[in-house]
Amino acid sequence: MTQQEQHAFDQAIALIPTGQEAGRYRGATRRDYWNMVGPFGGITAAIMAQAVLCHPQRLGLPIAITVNYAAAISAGPFEVHATPVRTNRSSQHWSVQMTQNDAQGTAQINTTATLVTALRRPTWSESDVPMPAVPRPETLRTMPIGPAGVDWLQRCEMRPVSGFIPKVWDGSGTHSETLLWLRDAMLRPLDFPLLTAMSDMFYPRVWLRRAKNVPAGTVSITTYFHVDAEGLAQIGPGYLLGRAQGQRFYNGFFDQTAQLWSEGGQLLATSNQMVYFKA
Amino acid sequence: MTQQEQHAFDQAIALIPTGQEAGRYRGATRRDYWNMVGPFGGITAAIMAQAVLCHPQRLGLPIAITVNYAAAISAGPFEVHATPVRTNRSSQHWSVQMTQNDAQGTAQINTTATLVTALRRPTWSESDVPMPAVPRPETLRTMPIGPAGVDWLQRCEMRPVSGFIPKVWDGSGTHSETLLWLRDAMLRPLDFPLLTAMSDMFYPRVWLRRAKNVPAGTVSITTYFHVDAEGLAQIGPGYLLGRAQGQRFYNGFFDQTAQLWSEGGQLLATSNQMVYFKA
Repeated sequence: MTQQEQHAFDQAIALIPTGQEAGRYRGATRRDYWNMVGPFGGITAAIMAQAVLCHPQRLGLPIAITVNYAAAISAGPFEVHATPVRTNRSSQHWSVQMTQNDAQGTAQINTTATLVTALRRPTWSESDVPMPAVPRPETLRTMPIGPAGVDWLQRCEMRPVSGFIPKVWDGSGTHSETLLWLRDAMLRPLDFPLLTAMSDMFYPRVWLRRAKNVPAGTVSITTYFHVDAEGLAQIGPGYLLGRAQGQRFYNGFFDQTAQLWSEGGQLLATSNQMVYFKA
Repeated sequence: MTQQEQHAFDQAIALIPTGQEAGRYRGATRRDYWNMVGPFGGITAAIMAQAVLCHPQRLGLPIAITVNYAAAISAGPFEVHATPVRTNRSSQHWSVQMTQNDAQGTAQINTTATLVTALRRPTWSESDVPMPAVPRPETLRTMPIGPAGVDWLQRCEMRPVSGFIPKVWDGSGTHSETLLWLRDAMLRPLDFPLLTAMSDMFYPRVWLRRAKNVPAGTVSITTYFHVDAEGLAQIGPGYLLGRAQGQRFYNGFFDQTAQLWSEGGQLLATSNQMVYFKA
């Protein structure tokens, strides 16, 4: 596959080693995943995961990731630095930072992350959050492409089941739950970076809860993975069912909780985020 | 108040500046909060929060904390280093590390954390997770003190409503939800470090789900705060209602989600953790 044929998602998370030391990479923001005033938060989270996945000293696969959006990311180049802070027999703890140079050429941190990777062993397994009974994706309409400037929405096929983005901002909201089918619009197969990005694909719950289009942005997201490489390979480009709901809205911040199931009903990832919002 | 009269919790989270640079502290583990093979994870999380709360450059109050348990903590002294990695107009992003010296005297990281602090503004507020209807704490029995060696359980008064620790490990578990009232056993008033510790006070969901006492330990916990200093002061030493439930158990790891309400029904904190377990 040539560079031109490479999928937009793979272009967006592409990292080139700087050659200085293991774990230091260069990348650049892509218009394809732009979200109003900066990159879509999910693609930034995917880049932080990718920095660990690329690392020559990595042990095992992602178990947990937390990404903190510390400052705005400008269009253009960035550096990512992934460090294995502790390596155990079957698990590893990572610290990741994204930087961009300011006007004076000084590297400024705009994003931080921690990851846990681990070798899994087969054990007793169970889910206590069954997939909601919903109509199959083929029976539902695809959500129309979002407003101009929100390019990343074109990269994702979404088929909402319930909890649509309000059509009228009239303050009539009564709940904060959305159910929707989603998959990559170009049918790119699922892997850890794409699953990381997908865990951030729910619009801010305050919009639904209030039916009011207030400014809002994620400050921190945590995603737990409940799948291994074989499980992801089985899903390929299949649909995921996503559920998101707000929990507490309080004085400028709220949290939203999310689950992502395979079409077969396996709970693949659980995710939570804290979101800034303006009154 | 003299050192001897100081509350066990305050002794356990006490940090003394090393004097080298802002944000570097010394502390020591306390038998009072011991949990079988190391300190109770909640007290370690509280220490990481305390390192930020003590910092002279801190802006605002905790919004989100993620603590990663990278390696075992030995009984004895430790160092904590809190760094403000990015300071914005009304929010601040922190990185925190706990280290202990190994046999060669080299500092080794055993715990990492990220925190977001922020100045809150009064806004529209709402909760979409109402407190479950449960009997008042005074009508319920206090949980008996746990097994020898688990000293931290003596520091916390727990009055379970449902989802007790199984009395018989016979594999008969059918669900993973616990509801319980809890407060500091010595009636220490609630603050951010204590609320951080309390968000980790639920025993591993796999014990309840399987009615099987398998080895288990938190690898990463994230807590979101939905309260400010005035709200905490109003609660004082009051009871909190805690709810915890497992979501997905898969090949050696599971996640559990938790909520903590004030007795008055305000959702104060939401928390999630990823836990290692042995088949």
